[in-house]
Amino acid sequence: MTNSAADNQQAIAEIERGTEEILKLGDLTTRLSEDRPLRVKVGFDPTAPDLHLGHTVILNKMRQFQQMGHTVIFLIGDFTGMIGDPTGKNVTRKPLTREQVDANAQTYKDQVFKILDPETTEVRFNSEWTTPLGAEGLVRLSAQYTVARMLERDDFENRYKSGQPIAIHEFLYPLVQGYDSVALQADVEMGGTDQKFNLLVGRHLQQQAGQKPQVIITLPLLEGLDGVQKMSKSLDNYVGIDEPAAEQFGKIMSISDELMWRYFELLSFRPLTEIQGLRQAMADGHNPRDIKFELAGEIVARFHSQAVADAARAEFIARFQGGAMPEDIPEKTLDTDGEGIGVVTALSRCGLTASNSEGFRMIQQGGVKIDGEKISDRSLVLSAGFSGVLQVGKRKFCRVNVS
Amino acid sequence: MTNSAADNQQAIAEIERGTEEILKLGDLTTRLSEDRPLRVKVGFDPTAPDLHLGHTVILNKMRQFQQMGHTVIFLIGDFTGMIGDPTGKNVTRKPLTREQVDANAQTYKDQVFKILDPETTEVRFNSEWTTPLGAEGLVRLSAQYTVARMLERDDFENRYKSGQPIAIHEFLYPLVQGYDSVALQADVEMGGTDQKFNLLVGRHLQQQAGQKPQVIITLPLLEGLDGVQKMSKSLDNYVGIDEPAAEQFGKIMSISDELMWRYFELLSFRPLTEIQGLRQAMADGHNPRDIKFELAGEIVARFHSQAVADAARAEFIARFQGGAMPEDIPEKTLDTDGEGIGVVTALSRCGLTASNSEGFRMIQQGGVKIDGEKISDRSLVLSAGFSGVLQVGKRKFCRVNVS
Repeated sequence: MTNSAADNQQAIAEIERGTEEILKLGDLTTRLSEDRPLRVKVGFDPTAPDLHLGHTVILNKMRQFQQMGHTVIFLIGDFTGMIGDPTGKNVTRKPLTREQVDANAQTYKDQVFKILDPETTEVRFNSEWTTPLGAEGLVRLSAQYTVARMLERDDFENRYKSGQPIAIHEFLYPLVQGYDSVALQADVEMGGTDQKFNLLVGRHLQQQAGQKPQVIITLPLLEGLDGVQKMSKSLDNYVGIDEPAAEQFGKIMSISDELMWRYFELLSFRPLTEIQGLRQAMADGHNPRDIKFELAGEIVARFHSQAVADAARAEFIARFQGGAMPEDIPEKTLDTDGEGIGVVTALSRCGLTASNSEGFRMIQQGGVKIDGEKISDRSLVLSAGFSGVLQVGKRKFCRVNVS
Repeated sequence: MTNSAADNQQAIAEIERGTEEILKLGDLTTRLSEDRPLRVKVGFDPTAPDLHLGHTVILNKMRQFQQMGHTVIFLIGDFTGMIGDPTGKNVTRKPLTREQVDANAQTYKDQVFKILDPETTEVRFNSEWTTPLGAEGLVRLSAQYTVARMLERDDFENRYKSGQPIAIHEFLYPLVQGYDSVALQADVEMGGTDQKFNLLVGRHLQQQAGQKPQVIITLPLLEGLDGVQKMSKSLDNYVGIDEPAAEQFGKIMSISDELMWRYFELLSFRPLTEIQGLRQAMADGHNPRDIKFELAGEIVARFHSQAVADAARAEFIARFQGGAMPEDIPEKTLDTDGEGIGVVTALSRCGLTASNSEGFRMIQQGGVKIDGEKISDRSLVLSAGFSGVLQVGKRKFCRVNVS
C-alpha cells in the first residue's frame, strides 16, 4: 500500500475506470490516503451461482482494490436467502437450507477465486449478525428509516403509484443490507446501478450508528455479445466463466469492434495506458481482429490457462480463417417423407436460427453457407437424399441429412 | 354457559350495549352458540397504569363475557413496551425493563381484579411468542401485509399525505398486535374505536394462518365529567378508581342528568331492563338526584365496599344538601401588602378556578359563595384582614385570609 499523492491519483483513475458513479469521490480520496487497508464490501445472492462475464465486472473491481492492498468482503446474503420470498409469489426465491447456502458458497469460491485473491478476501454470511438481532433488533433497525424515504426508491414508487402490491418485508431487506455495512464497518460498498438506493441506506444507517458513511460505487451492467441487451443466460448472449475455452474464445471474437473497447474497459486487467495504446494501434491501421485476439486470449487465459488460451486461438485461426470446419459438427436427420425441405426451415429445425425470419435475414446478409458455399436463394429446397453441412455465421454448423 | 336461542339473544343484547361496532355480529352469534368458552382478547399498554372510569368501559365488557362463561385474556404488550419508541422522539415511551413490566402488571392486577374475575382471566405477555419469532419470523410476518393497506390506516394516511414522517417500525407494531391474535387463537378482540384498524389486521393474519377471523368489537371513549371531552387525567375530568370514596361520590354527583344515562350504559352493571326502569321513574317525576345516588353508590361500592359507599352518600347529603361544609377545607393566606384583592383574582390564586374568565363566569352563573352566601358582584374586593370561606360550585372550598 502506498499513500503518495501521485500514486493515489493513479489509484483513483483505475477505480473510476468503468464505474457509473462514485459517491463521494472526495471521501474515497481521503480514505485512500489513510494508509490502512480499506474494507470493501460487495453483497451476493446466495442462490446457486453460475457466473458469466457480466458478474465479473464487479469482481474485477474488487480485485483492483485487493491489488492496492485493501480487503474485500465477499458477503453472502444468507439471512434473506434462507427466508426466501415469504409471500410465496416468487417461485424462484424459495427458501434455501443452511446446507444449500454452504454448497452455493463453495461453488462461488470455486469460481470467484479465479479472479479474487483468497488471501485478502473475507467471505462472510450476514446471518452472523442479523439473526442475533432478533425481532426486537429488527424493530429498532426499522425505526431508523421512514416510509416516505423508502417509497422514494424507484421501483417502490412506481409500484405504489400503479397500485401493484409491495409487501412490508420488502422494506426490511434494504435495511438489513444497510445494517450489514454497519456490522462490517465497510469503508466502501459496490453494486450494480440498480443497487444505488440500498447502498445509500447503508450510508444512512452507518451515520446513525456513529460511523463514517461508506463510499458507494455503482457499476454498469455489462452488455451481452449482441452489444445491446445486458448479458444474461436467458438471453443467450453471455460468456460463462466455466465454459470451454474454444467456446469462450469464439464468442468473444464474435463481438463488434465497438463492444470490444467496452469489454477492454470492464473486463481486461490491462492498465488504461496500455488499452489507450491498442486504440492508437487500431487508429493507425492495425487489424481489429488481432486486437480482439488479445482480449479473447486474456479472458480465456484467466479462466483456463495461457496454454489453453493459445491453443484456442490457434484452433480459431485454423477453423475460420483457413476456412476449415471444426471437427465435431453436430449431425441431424430431417425426415420429410421424401418431399424435401426449404433451406430456411432446415436451418431453423437444426437450431442454427431461432426463427424463419432470422433464416431469411441471414441468407440475405450472406451469412449462410452450404458446404462452405454462400447461398443467396431464400427459396432453395433441400431434396430428399441431400447430405451436407449448413453453416450460419462463422461459428454455427450442422451436418444435415434429408430423408 | 348456555346456548338456547333466547339466552343468546339476551347475551347479544348485553354485549351490544354501549359498543360502537361489532364486526361481524353474525359470526359472534354463531360462536356464542358453539357451547364453549370463547377466548376474548384485550391488549393493554405495559406502561404504569393508573386507571380511571374511562378504562373500565372495556373492563366491564370483559366482565360481561366472563359472566357468560367465557375466558378473557388480559394481554400486556410487553414486547413493544420493552422496545419503547426506538426513534427516541417520544420521551413518554421509554423502553421498560422486565422488572418494570412485571411491577406494572401487578399494579394492573390490583386494579382490574376489582372488576374482572381472576379465575377466568388469563394474564399474558406477548413477548412470550413475539421474541421467539426472531428477525426471520418478523420478516415472514411482515410479508403478510402490504404497504398500501397499511397506509390506509387513517393516521398513517394523514401523516404520509402531510409529509410527517412515519418510521418503518410503526408498520410492524400493528402486525405484532395482529399476530398476538394468531398466537392466542382469539375468538373476539375488543378495543377502543381508534384500534379498529389494528383489530382488522388480526383478522387478516388469522385468515392467513388458517384460523377463523376474530370478531372485533370497538368501544367508545368515555366522556369525562364535563360531558364533552374524553375522560383523561390531563383534562382533570376523571374519576380514578383508586380515589377516596367521597371524592368519587362527589364527582359522579356533579355530572349532568344526560351524562348520567351514558354512565349507566357504560359503567353500571345493572341490566338494561333495570336501567330502563330508572329512566321511566325519572320520566314519572322521580328526582334525578336520587337516581344519580344509585349510580354513584354502585360505582363507589365497586371500588371500595357497600358500607363505604353508604357512608359517602350520607356525608354527601350532610355536606351539600344540609348546607354544611366539609371538615377539611384547605386554608390559604393571600399577601396583598394591605391593598386587598379582587374576588376573581382570589378565586384563581386559591386554585378554585383555572382562570379569571372562569371566575367571572362562575360568579355570573351564581356558582360562587362567600361563607355560604352567593355573590353576584364580579368587582367585589376582599380587603386586607378578610377571613372567610370561598366556595365554587358544590365541591370546591378554600378558607382565605387576606393580609
